[in-house]
Amino acid sequence: MNNFVYDIPTRVYFGEGQIKHLGEELKKYGQRVLLTYGGGSIKRSGLYDAVMQQMAEAGLEVYELADIAPNPRIESVRRGAEMCKAHQIDVLLAVGGGSTLDATKFMAAGALVDHDPWDFFNERWAPIHRALPIVTVLTLSATGSEMDCGGVISNPDTQDKIGRMAPPLLPKASFLDPTYTYTVSQYQTACGAADMISHILEVYFTTEPDLYMLDCFMEGMLKTIIKYTPVAMAEPDNYEARANLMWTSSWAINGFVNGGKRHAWSCHPIEHELSAIYDITHGLGLAIVTPRWMKYCLDETNVDKYVQFGVNVFGIDPSQPAMDIAHEAIDRLSHFLFDTLQLDSTFPAVGIDRTHFATMARKACGGKVLPGFKPLKQEDVEQIFEMCMA
Amino acid sequence: MNNFVYDIPTRVYFGEGQIKHLGEELKKYGQRVLLTYGGGSIKRSGLYDAVMQQMAEAGLEVYELADIAPNPRIESVRRGAEMCKAHQIDVLLAVGGGSTLDATKFMAAGALVDHDPWDFFNERWAPIHRALPIVTVLTLSATGSEMDCGGVISNPDTQDKIGRMAPPLLPKASFLDPTYTYTVSQYQTACGAADMISHILEVYFTTEPDLYMLDCFMEGMLKTIIKYTPVAMAEPDNYEARANLMWTSSWAINGFVNGGKRHAWSCHPIEHELSAIYDITHGLGLAIVTPRWMKYCLDETNVDKYVQFGVNVFGIDPSQPAMDIAHEAIDRLSHFLFDTLQLDSTFPAVGIDRTHFATMARKACGGKVLPGFKPLKQEDVEQIFEMCMA
Repeated sequence: MNNFVYDIPTRVYFGEGQIKHLGEELKKYGQRVLLTYGGGSIKRSGLYDAVMQQMAEAGLEVYELADIAPNPRIESVRRGAEMCKAHQIDVLLAVGGGSTLDATKFMAAGALVDHDPWDFFNERWAPIHRALPIVTVLTLSATGSEMDCGGVISNPDTQDKIGRMAPPLLPKASFLDPTYTYTVSQYQTACGAADMISHILEVYFTTEPDLYMLDCFMEGMLKTIIKYTPVAMAEPDNYEARANLMWTSSWAINGFVNGGKRHAWSCHPIEHELSAIYDITHGLGLAIVTPRWMKYCLDETNVDKYVQFGVNVFGIDPSQPAMDIAHEAIDRLSHFLFDTLQLDSTFPAVGIDRTHFATMARKACGGKVLPGFKPLKQEDVEQIFEMCMA
Repeated sequence: MNNFVYDIPTRVYFGEGQIKHLGEELKKYGQRVLLTYGGGSIKRSGLYDAVMQQMAEAGLEVYELADIAPNPRIESVRRGAEMCKAHQIDVLLAVGGGSTLDATKFMAAGALVDHDPWDFFNERWAPIHRALPIVTVLTLSATGSEMDCGGVISNPDTQDKIGRMAPPLLPKASFLDPTYTYTVSQYQTACGAADMISHILEVYFTTEPDLYMLDCFMEGMLKTIIKYTPVAMAEPDNYEARANLMWTSSWAINGFVNGGKRHAWSCHPIEHELSAIYDITHGLGLAIVTPRWMKYCLDETNVDKYVQFGVNVFGIDPSQPAMDIAHEAIDRLSHFLFDTLQLDSTFPAVGIDRTHFATMARKACGGKVLPGFKPLKQEDVEQIFEMCMA
């Protein structure tokens, strides 16, 4: 078991109507706010007006950057960083889902350096020693960006989609009001669930010694997602379902469940290559890849973890042979993702063919090996891609 | 489901040898340290020397306050607050279990006020707006004081034992090294487990709507305690067992699992009256009271929660009648506490007779009603006491 430092000082305002604390929270950090958001759904939902009203009442000076796209682009980050410099912004307020939050984090870092923000991601890997304070209002339960210090940015020019973590990027405060997710579509709700499941499984499936307590927590989160995602899809304004999914999204990836485990993730790097080229929804890509990755990695040395997963999460009868339980567990997960959540289950269904398999697999492995639950080489990833074809 | 604010910025250094970061952590807060500890076990174990060496290497000026007793007394708090004032202390370092940590918290608050620290607890209920920074090194997995903002102080003059919470009392950093608990006796390990179990059940048994995700987490912590306490008792230097218990102790009571539930606790106020008069170990008192309290509160309106507990924590067959499952769950918990952990199971076994039943019950109810899972009047608490006689 490895040592670790637990340090997640994000203050979370959870529940309906907590937005009333937004003004006081922002004022802790200054007067000049850069408000960032995506395609305008927050205007349709009324959230934009609510946020603006809170800031007006607090006497804050607000600048706006809209149109942050899903799979957010470096161009948005550049624009935000420049606005921060031009207007001497004190604090950034990101209102939206993971894309808006991720982009905003690197604007906050980019505001305090002289170089191009893409240097945080390219071979320069420029250090992130500090960032302007970030506050978030979440509208989609999925990426966990509201309570972690990472983000993923795409560069269409280079067909790269790269993640980066740095402690200064951790939001100072996040507002989690489940009612803001009532307007999330069935499809996006399902994709968010797939994203959360992957966050958990990337950590859960490990060969490192880990804390049983944290395994129990991860199993609890998986059970929560399995229980409440169908409810939220059927009843979009079910507060209990939306609340459980929202709080789970934060805890699935805020680092708590790592508990000292250091192994690299597998499905996320693989999926990032998919959505870098095909611009598919991140959660959908993860849904397609994850069960295949589990099947590809399964062997006699690691079957016990699959058994634990199958028995504790899906209630599979533990008296069966281990390999049978493992395969049933993967089948149960696939059934949940593709039947219950109604997500597309194959690459052809989402328009991916074999054209870029070699390139994507090579990039996912960083040219060498993708370390993780089971180290994967380019040919391994290509085989996982092949499994996704049907 | 109630709204809540999640805000636990304590930085936790978890794992063997993390003490090497102690000097740098303390120096964030200043130069003059008040080191507090208990009866000297930290000198026998070598931890005292390790701590002093870290502080010497960091060039810190150290003052010492020893002999903080279990069920810590207001007199220790007074002494510590005076030392802070006399020596212009910058930061307090508590090395020990919950008693040392609790007392140190109120020294840190008492250092910044002019009145007697007991005024934090008596009818004046003096406000706690600020406190000197607190850092802790934990040697006993039980109270969770290392990651919460509360503590309990006894006043032998008034036979009071009173808890108080205030955000400024939250430790800035805590060092959780499971090897520091290797010397904890079987008995104290068992009492610590009983304390943790009670912390969880006080929140788990609720009539308020709560988050399923948090119920899963609580069940996971209970399973962790049930799995690893016997291991730690049999093999005191089993790192995996000590680590799981240590991290569970923090999360059982740091406020996370409350998730907006506001109902008052029941067994803790009742037990505080016992140990205020009889000075028994807090966890032992809780072990005796908790199963009786569960049995006393059980009825048709709340049986489902007992069923959830019995099925998810003890794996009881869910196809039985609900009341049967509930009673079996209580029996299984009693068996764990009194047979597996070998704790005394009755009041007579620990020297408590009926002499003070009425007084203790009245005080536990604050003269009126103890609100909680089931509101209890004085006569209810007296009946629970009576159940503890055999």
